[in-house]
Amino acid sequence: MHPKLLKGNLLLFFLVVLAWPVEAQVPVPVDVSQTTDDSLLIRRLADTILTDGQAYGNLRLLTKTVGARLSGSAGYYKAEKWGQQALGAANADKVWLQECMVPHWIRGGKDSASWSTRGRRTGLDVLALGNSQGTGPTAIQAPVVLINNFDELEQQKDKLKGKIVFYNYPFNPLLVETFQAYGDAVRYRGAGASRAARYGAIGVLVRSMSSSVTNFPHTGALAYNDSFPKIPAFAVGLRDADRLAEQLKANPGATSAYMRSGARMLPDTPAHNIIGELKGTEFPNQYITVGGHLDSWDPAEGAQDDGAGCVQSIEVLRALKAIGYKPRHTIRVVLFANEENGGRGGRKYAEAAKDAGEKHLLGLESDNGGFTPRAFTISLPDEKLAAIQPWIQLLKPYGVYEFERGGGGSDVNPMARQLGATVGELRPDSQRYFEYHHARNDVLENVNKRELELGAVNMAALIYLVDKYGL
Amino acid sequence: MHPKLLKGNLLLFFLVVLAWPVEAQVPVPVDVSQTTDDSLLIRRLADTILTDGQAYGNLRLLTKTVGARLSGSAGYYKAEKWGQQALGAANADKVWLQECMVPHWIRGGKDSASWSTRGRRTGLDVLALGNSQGTGPTAIQAPVVLINNFDELEQQKDKLKGKIVFYNYPFNPLLVETFQAYGDAVRYRGAGASRAARYGAIGVLVRSMSSSVTNFPHTGALAYNDSFPKIPAFAVGLRDADRLAEQLKANPGATSAYMRSGARMLPDTPAHNIIGELKGTEFPNQYITVGGHLDSWDPAEGAQDDGAGCVQSIEVLRALKAIGYKPRHTIRVVLFANEENGGRGGRKYAEAAKDAGEKHLLGLESDNGGFTPRAFTISLPDEKLAAIQPWIQLLKPYGVYEFERGGGGSDVNPMARQLGATVGELRPDSQRYFEYHHARNDVLENVNKRELELGAVNMAALIYLVDKYGL
Repeated sequence: MHPKLLKGNLLLFFLVVLAWPVEAQVPVPVDVSQTTDDSLLIRRLADTILTDGQAYGNLRLLTKTVGARLSGSAGYYKAEKWGQQALGAANADKVWLQECMVPHWIRGGKDSASWSTRGRRTGLDVLALGNSQGTGPTAIQAPVVLINNFDELEQQKDKLKGKIVFYNYPFNPLLVETFQAYGDAVRYRGAGASRAARYGAIGVLVRSMSSSVTNFPHTGALAYNDSFPKIPAFAVGLRDADRLAEQLKANPGATSAYMRSGARMLPDTPAHNIIGELKGTEFPNQYITVGGHLDSWDPAEGAQDDGAGCVQSIEVLRALKAIGYKPRHTIRVVLFANEENGGRGGRKYAEAAKDAGEKHLLGLESDNGGFTPRAFTISLPDEKLAAIQPWIQLLKPYGVYEFERGGGGSDVNPMARQLGATVGELRPDSQRYFEYHHARNDVLENVNKRELELGAVNMAALIYLVDKYGL
Repeated sequence: MHPKLLKGNLLLFFLVVLAWPVEAQVPVPVDVSQTTDDSLLIRRLADTILTDGQAYGNLRLLTKTVGARLSGSAGYYKAEKWGQQALGAANADKVWLQECMVPHWIRGGKDSASWSTRGRRTGLDVLALGNSQGTGPTAIQAPVVLINNFDELEQQKDKLKGKIVFYNYPFNPLLVETFQAYGDAVRYRGAGASRAARYGAIGVLVRSMSSSVTNFPHTGALAYNDSFPKIPAFAVGLRDADRLAEQLKANPGATSAYMRSGARMLPDTPAHNIIGELKGTEFPNQYITVGGHLDSWDPAEGAQDDGAGCVQSIEVLRALKAIGYKPRHTIRVVLFANEENGGRGGRKYAEAAKDAGEKHLLGLESDNGGFTPRAFTISLPDEKLAAIQPWIQLLKPYGVYEFERGGGGSDVNPMARQLGATVGELRPDSQRYFEYHHARNDVLENVNKRELELGAVNMAALIYLVDKYGL
């Protein structure tokens, strides 16, 4: 669209253009020390983030000079250095490392898979699931059985010995919030291997956790049940999954699959949470934590998951400092280690805080992608949530229109359990998250700079309000 | 992120996964004839759009088999056929064409431009603006003058004779709603050429109407003032504009630019609005119109602008029919001709409706891209807008959380002027629109299927509510 233009009629053009609801006033600079007006202070936070913001530039560095950073990989240790540097450049009063032991799973080269019917072989775009055992160099080949859900698995349990199970459970498209569709489907990725191994299956193919129109396979962690053999498990791209399912419906019993992967789990290895702090002026021993996780899956750049949350959290600190805000409480940015296949960083942070007897007002996470902001979940009871509803009017100009009762991200949830802290997370629009999640296309080019920045604006505003008014 | 997995601890894995707020109930089928429950009926509209939807498939056909479709081009006439077919397939009771005369501007080959300082030449990624005169085969070359805004133009007016003016007015990043930044900046595209020609300039380069991190130039219409020479005007990609501006600041007076374009305006030519209808059962002579525009700029596929609005509008009709809804009023889908460089289709539709004495309840447009829905603007006075606020509770599960007072899209606004009709438009999230608007990257791959569908869900729901309750 465009303001309608009429050839040769400049006057009418201007009438139409000027009828556009332009409210292009550039805010007047405000002396922070002189104002108690929350909307003006939040406007100043927004202004520095939207004009001098470092979030996107930081994300470019992380994705393009560090790239993939799975726990235990060389990339993760490079990312630790990047995080320290970025927090320093954001003017943290103090930056330090908190050590924890993390799992060290390696992919061990390119995964490959195919299926064959009557001698005709068709390749599959696959990724071994995180934590999966590989096949070793000899690979596996076996008849493949289509299993649409766990009920079918139980019905077919006597026919699975020596077979490869193909779980083809799709995202439910009726669930508007895509994380609900993920929550519904992800058990096939997480538990499918062991449940099939229990009945003698020797390998598992899992429809990717996505509702994309593309064919990128989406990896992600599985969890083996130690009572059963640890069989290899691969994510399959959606278009390939559709074709394979069609084939298996048309010719059940006539199709075999081939799987090869060099994946294996090595001994645990040390890694670090990276922490930066703005010291509180009034309650230096009371803390507000904001963070994302520094590790990512190995096939891409971890731009949305969760480079976005890391750079947004750093940007919160940078913006508060840049406008000269002096927090009452100590504000900590934490870049958590090992969210993807262990959650060790989040648990370490909460345990250490508990050991130190720290009081934490809020643990806020951004780990749902740097998409356009819509809501925050906060783990407050209804009446306390109602009490902070007036803050929504301050956030709404920047996109957040709702506080929902709910948990935090998986890195800050241990703070609720260990410390009794309130936790929460940014809930940006969810429609695109599972386009990129754990897939090769989770790259900088699929992050929109302004959406990323607006998430940071809302996070900074919420941190400011909690610092000022408590929870 | 992912529900946290603990290696070897399947029980804890399930506890965490099941703690996820899954509400994966698939709605029970509802007999439409038996229910008066609006939320159930809207749920059925959503279900058919999100599961059996044709919006994305229709958009694939339009973008990949028709592609660009500027007024007067062969592509536009192919698009007319596509529109008739799509409305027929959506089960419109009736499909017809409404003729109007449209401008016929052609690009005439590839535009090219560059700048030179002391013999060193640097290419610019450019697109001649729509309606621009070309340079002819001889091209133009002249010193280039940096003009940051119209105030500067007036100050420099004595120095512009024989020069090329480079307008470098950026989007204001502080305006969260990007259409406001566009409304603020677009006068340089629309009126910049004639204002520079007035002072003797022979060509104009305009910073693209965007705040993207990419360098794609964004075309779009200009309007010449007939009192001054019609000089060629090009849009320049943002990164190229930054470099050129830097050069001109460092070395004013030392830089010349080269521009070549075969663009020209041909005589007006006939084209058509494509109209499909569901006949009203109670008030067949009262109308509700929903539409988008069928024409697009020539450099890309017009996927977001405005293929999205066309397929969403068709989907509204398809979904209403698919669930067996019998509208009280006649519902019309209009694929408007010539929005981009003339607005002739929208004016024709309103004039014809006025001539026929038709009563129109609402003209609703989708022409802000198929992005995740947030709001509708509706041209109702405040008290009437307040009266329909309860509808928001019905739309919110699908993303729209606000009715704002405001106009419709430029194709339906003539219905307000000619017919006194209420007009409105879908206001999806605006952050990504000017990434693609009128640029080479406005292609299907930059449309998210679910965002597109959710827009259609909200449009269908609003049309249903207006049909049932009036406005």
